[in-house]
Amino acid sequence: MTDKKTALVISAHAADFVWRAGGAIALHQQRGYEVTIVCLSYGERGESAKLWKQGATLEEVKAARRVEAEAAAQALDAHDIQFFDLGDYPLELDRDAKFRLVDVIRAVQPSFMLSHSLYDPYNTDHMYATKVAMECRMIAQAWGHNPGEKVLGAPQLYLFEPHQTEQMGWKPDVFLDITEVWDKKRAAIECMAGQEHLWAYYTNVAENRGNHFRRNSGGQAGGRNARYAEGFQSIYPRTVDEL
Amino acid sequence: MTDKKTALVISAHAADFVWRAGGAIALHQQRGYEVTIVCLSYGERGESAKLWKQGATLEEVKAARRVEAEAAAQALDAHDIQFFDLGDYPLELDRDAKFRLVDVIRAVQPSFMLSHSLYDPYNTDHMYATKVAMECRMIAQAWGHNPGEKVLGAPQLYLFEPHQTEQMGWKPDVFLDITEVWDKKRAAIECMAGQEHLWAYYTNVAENRGNHFRRNSGGQAGGRNARYAEGFQSIYPRTVDEL
Amino acid sequence: MTDKKTALVISAHAADFVWRAGGAIALHQQRGYEVTIVCLSYGERGESAKLWKQGATLEEVKAARRVEAEAAAQALDAHDIQFFDLGDYPLELDRDAKFRLVDVIRAVQPSFMLSHSLYDPYNTDHMYATKVAMECRMIAQAWGHNPGEKVLGAPQLYLFEPHQTEQMGWKPDVFLDITEVWDKKRAAIECMAGQEHLWAYYTNVAENRGNHFRRNSGGQAGGRNARYAEGFQSIYPRTVDEL
Amino acid sequence: MTDKKTALVISAHAADFVWRAGGAIALHQQRGYEVTIVCLSYGERGESAKLWKQGATLEEVKAARRVEAEAAAQALDAHDIQFFDLGDYPLELDRDAKFRLVDVIRAVQPSFMLSHSLYDPYNTDHMYATKVAMECRMIAQAWGHNPGEKVLGAPQLYLFEPHQTEQMGWKPDVFLDITEVWDKKRAAIECMAGQEHLWAYYTNVAENRGNHFRRNSGGQAGGRNARYAEGFQSIYPRTVDEL
Amino acid sequence: MTDKKTALVISAHAADFVWRAGGAIALHQQRGYEVTIVCLSYGERGESAKLWKQGATLEEVKAARRVEAEAAAQALDAHDIQFFDLGDYPLELDRDAKFRLVDVIRAVQPSFMLSHSLYDPYNTDHMYATKVAMECRMIAQAWGHNPGEKVLGAPQLYLFEPHQTEQMGWKPDVFLDITEVWDKKRAAIECMAGQEHLWAYYTNVAENRGNHFRRNSGGQAGGRNARYAEGFQSIYPRTVDEL
Amino acid sequence: MTDKKTALVISAHAADFVWRAGGAIALHQQRGYEVTIVCLSYGERGESAKLWKQGATLEEVKAARRVEAEAAAQALDAHDIQFFDLGDYPLELDRDAKFRLVDVIRAVQPSFMLSHSLYDPYNTDHMYATKVAMECRMIAQAWGHNPGEKVLGAPQLYLFEPHQTEQMGWKPDVFLDITEVWDKKRAAIECMAGQEHLWAYYTNVAENRGNHFRRNSGGQAGGRNARYAEGFQSIYPRTVDEL
Repeated sequence: MTDKKTALVISAHAADFVWRAGGAIALHQQRGYEVTIVCLSYGERGESAKLWKQGATLEEVKAARRVEAEAAAQALDAHDIQFFDLGDYPLELDRDAKFRLVDVIRAVQPSFMLSHSLYDPYNTDHMYATKVAMECRMIAQAWGHNPGEKVLGAPQLYLFEPHQTEQMGWKPDVFLDITEVWDKKRAAIECMAGQEHLWAYYTNVAENRGNHFRRNSGGQAGGRNARYAEGFQSIYPRTVDEL
Repeated sequence: MTDKKTALVISAHAADFVWRAGGAIALHQQRGYEVTIVCLSYGERGESAKLWKQGATLEEVKAARRVEAEAAAQALDAHDIQFFDLGDYPLELDRDAKFRLVDVIRAVQPSFMLSHSLYDPYNTDHMYATKVAMECRMIAQAWGHNPGEKVLGAPQLYLFEPHQTEQMGWKPDVFLDITEVWDKKRAAIECMAGQEHLWAYYTNVAENRGNHFRRNSGGQAGGRNARYAEGFQSIYPRTVDEL
Repeated sequence: MTDKKTALVISAHAADFVWRAGGAIALHQQRGYEVTIVCLSYGERGESAKLWKQGATLEEVKAARRVEAEAAAQALDAHDIQFFDLGDYPLELDRDAKFRLVDVIRAVQPSFMLSHSLYDPYNTDHMYATKVAMECRMIAQAWGHNPGEKVLGAPQLYLFEPHQTEQMGWKPDVFLDITEVWDKKRAAIECMAGQEHLWAYYTNVAENRGNHFRRNSGGQAGGRNARYAEGFQSIYPRTVDEL
Repeated sequence: MTDKKTALVISAHAADFVWRAGGAIALHQQRGYEVTIVCLSYGERGESAKLWKQGATLEEVKAARRVEAEAAAQALDAHDIQFFDLGDYPLELDRDAKFRLVDVIRAVQPSFMLSHSLYDPYNTDHMYATKVAMECRMIAQAWGHNPGEKVLGAPQLYLFEPHQTEQMGWKPDVFLDITEVWDKKRAAIECMAGQEHLWAYYTNVAENRGNHFRRNSGGQAGGRNARYAEGFQSIYPRTVDEL
Repeated sequence: MTDKKTALVISAHAADFVWRAGGAIALHQQRGYEVTIVCLSYGERGESAKLWKQGATLEEVKAARRVEAEAAAQALDAHDIQFFDLGDYPLELDRDAKFRLVDVIRAVQPSFMLSHSLYDPYNTDHMYATKVAMECRMIAQAWGHNPGEKVLGAPQLYLFEPHQTEQMGWKPDVFLDITEVWDKKRAAIECMAGQEHLWAYYTNVAENRGNHFRRNSGGQAGGRNARYAEGFQSIYPRTVDEL
Repeated sequence: MTDKKTALVISAHAADFVWRAGGAIALHQQRGYEVTIVCLSYGERGESAKLWKQGATLEEVKAARRVEAEAAAQALDAHDIQFFDLGDYPLELDRDAKFRLVDVIRAVQPSFMLSHSLYDPYNTDHMYATKVAMECRMIAQAWGHNPGEKVLGAPQLYLFEPHQTEQMGWKPDVFLDITEVWDKKRAAIECMAGQEHLWAYYTNVAENRGNHFRRNSGGQAGGRNARYAEGFQSIYPRTVDEL
């Protein structure tokens, strides 16, 4: 059990994890990690325009979004996906909801966490989710929170790629080669029936991040031939034995 | 030969590499790297107050600084140390001097490079050295520079710790555990007879960076017991197979 | 109706819109826009020192501030001014208050919005108002919020000029020539009987922003002779057919 | 009474003031200031690992933390220490709690205030405390808050030194020579029995800040021989008669 | 003559203008502008790996790059393209070379200028070109430089999109719809025989910037259906009559 | 001699010191300082449009600018003004010119230095002058530069107020009350016959900075009644005995 490698994705809305971290999820599952996804909301109010235009009710929208997200999680071989159903636009977590997230963090004991960018003037739910992720990571480290439980160590918090990266002030400091799991990510993307206009967009992103991977791994003088990649921004410094 | 792991330190003045990257040098030598140090100047005018107060001449100061730096490099088991003797306060590199540095970069083919912070309002030689390091890295990558030579890949450029980090806008994103080579770094530090007032200062730095290493590797919930560390800021994103 | 051009000003306190966006309001009214102003509070506790010194009660202060603000809005020919009366120092909006603001945004369907700077260590109500403006803009865009209502497009959010601009990190990227409506702005300013010490201050600001307009429109080689101007910082990128 | 010089320290957890501002407290007391410390929480859940490992209850932890903090305050000769007992991890202040803090600010009428850094991804309580300090400073300045009370002027808000300064984006713009009260600060540090691992850490910090003091007061050409110092970042500009 | 609308592109290397501003060039030509391109170097040493690998000489490389760039300029209907042949990796302009660029700026009298990002740690020639563009814009405004010549007004300087935007700190504040000239840009791109690996990359960029255009012009509530776009960052504030 | 208090102003062009630091010069002279002004150029090419329009020759422009600057210096009671006549647009200092500036710095031994903002996209001479000021301050501190001369201590470098402060990223951290010498500054301003369009502009600036002084010294609760002020940004941290 202590040898288990795990990761935790905190997604403001049901579909966010797919576009932004689908490759990381599938790849780490393939490397033996157990990846848990928490969807704080279904994105039912703000990210389901197609369904609303079709006249769906709130419950129908939520159900449809859940089905899509579960299918995507399955396509990525994700270990677990949990829906907190906290509402969106705006997303809000009270103290109890935060402690519920802390419970998951402690249960998972993630080697690393993934969430949104620190700033997003288009979508304040996104930056709020990251603020909460940071706060709950801190609570999970507190010896006085539910004394007796295993406290959290110091997992990295990676910020996955937002839409319109430059507007969010997001700067990736690590590129992950997802070539070997690209088919899974693409399959997960195609589960998002309501947002078909984004399929090509995020395929382009993955291809161009592949270019960045090649360039940063050596370019024309020995770079590795990654065809698809994802970028992440780290919040905390790394600790290493070798540069 | 292709298996050789190498690193290159670009130091504006003769002593800079000791305080700021002595641990990294000794550690990577111990890990099988060949670490080359380039001192662009001896720091003869600006960083040798003690000798000038004693009435030394310029040549005497340079000679004394060289002896100290060579001793320190030896204490760190550095593979090679080269003195460009370009003058300091201010340090200036013309096109030929830059190409000389490019020659070294290509000869070494470093896995990673080390230099100063991007900004330093106390010591403009420091930030100038980094500007040059970045420019020469680019030239070394050019297929049209001395065609036929092996061009450079895409080594990371790490910025080592400046004095008064916050004033320089320097933010470390990686901490290196140098506990096992601390004795060597301390020995190298003690070679700097002219700057004895800095011995305790950089010992304190190393101890406190050890604290940062422990905290970021898990804190009270499993952090590793590093006693001494060094911090570095990366310029380029990393490319990885696993987060 | 669809041809109607509209704008929305979100003001933390009753007088903010006058000093900071009075020219924009009067000018756009003159250009055929309908400009709606929302005062989230009267600024009764924090920005009415003169009245409190005279011994007024809370209700008297609020009434007096309302009279002033209405007079100023009239002087600017503003289409509408609404008072949310949410209290100040600190200003706080619960979910219902936010949805009330969303209702106004959707009713107005603004071509552009105006609010405060992103940061203000002197007046946290100001930056809070902008945070809320951004959040409510997002909610107004959600197809699932009050389904059936016309959702919001993507109006620019301009940040108007704060006091002590440099301390707020505010950087104008657009200057608006308000020369032709300056008399209206000055008249509105003079409605603020309680803050007479600011009349000359904001006249100076308008004159000096006129200088900036002239300089940026060509300077001594053809700049336009604006005598008064206002500056604004944009949050979102523009979309154009010609640079 | 009007001649009294006072200062106010706002500390998120019981021990924060010791490590980060102990020297400033002791020194200003010695200079005739009355320094009041407000501990918003005991840090009982998040910063008392040692006690929790020993099996203490919540009340026991709080009591122990209080004893330590009171002893430290006494070692520093602090005029007053108040415990708000608002809970930690996460720390949260509702409107009443904020007004309670405003009451203290107005009662103290501080010449300057001290609190945490603006950003802290490790400890969100810290940055929250500063956000609240800024907000309550504003409320305390409002003539309409408890009319009749003496309103607050414009005291500086100094941010004291956080752990891992560079990760917090904290940049000191003033160094205070605490050599003459170092023994008191060290005695206060030693009151923190639960965090003995930090004693040497903050002694190193004080020594190295002493180096920064010397360097910035003239270096080898006349710098003053401070042996221990503390650094602070100012939020507001100073107003002076001489540069 | 005074009615002529013109623009000036300052490109560090021969191909830069194609990838980064090809759409803007073709579109403004189509709108009646005369667009002049200045290539400060051919990018012969640093951006012609394919030719060097084939064993070309320096003169052959420069000639081939010139042919490509001229063909691309023609595909974009550019009014004029000038080659300064100043050398690359590193690019350097002495006083005479700067004055030569000033001569072009004054002759063109551009309504706006285009150049590289302010920062580029991968390619210092790029940021150097922008530094020079800014400096020469200033000289061209000086009444004392070649007195009697028509001095420059205050044209905007747009920074076109660099490779790896986030690493360069580049943030677009304007998106230009280039759908109607996309075929011309693609044709120009295909003139770059030596860099075929970038064709798909910049097609992806154009498509995704089209998405950003749609989102920022109204999204699902009325955004315009741009299919291809380019992004630019402005250095100077705009001056307008209407927001 | 050791008791003499001195200051040094480094001005890129002849008139810069008047608008930006005239108050500081006059005030410190009045306080017993000896203030030396170095004008690196006359601003003859770039900041003398009026004279060029009148058909003056280069030598005539320089002579006229010198007369104006000397008159302004006299109006401010400046101790000394020196003209380096290095040319402008662009301003360039070779090694000898830098050493000439170092000679002045060492001769003056300033308690503090004043120069331009760190960034200025309108006027690259300005930011270049500050870069040089920083570099020459460092050289003046070097014991090996002209050994035997008295080396420089660690004077503060204040950046005086640029035009369009927000575009330059300039943030004042200190306001100086110049009320008592305002008449002298205004008289100096009126010596600038060629730039009469700026007289009112900088009077407005001084009045509004007076407002900022009042606000930051206590506002409506005790702020001092400064009527005119100047703002400055510090490069280095201060060292103090009391906060």
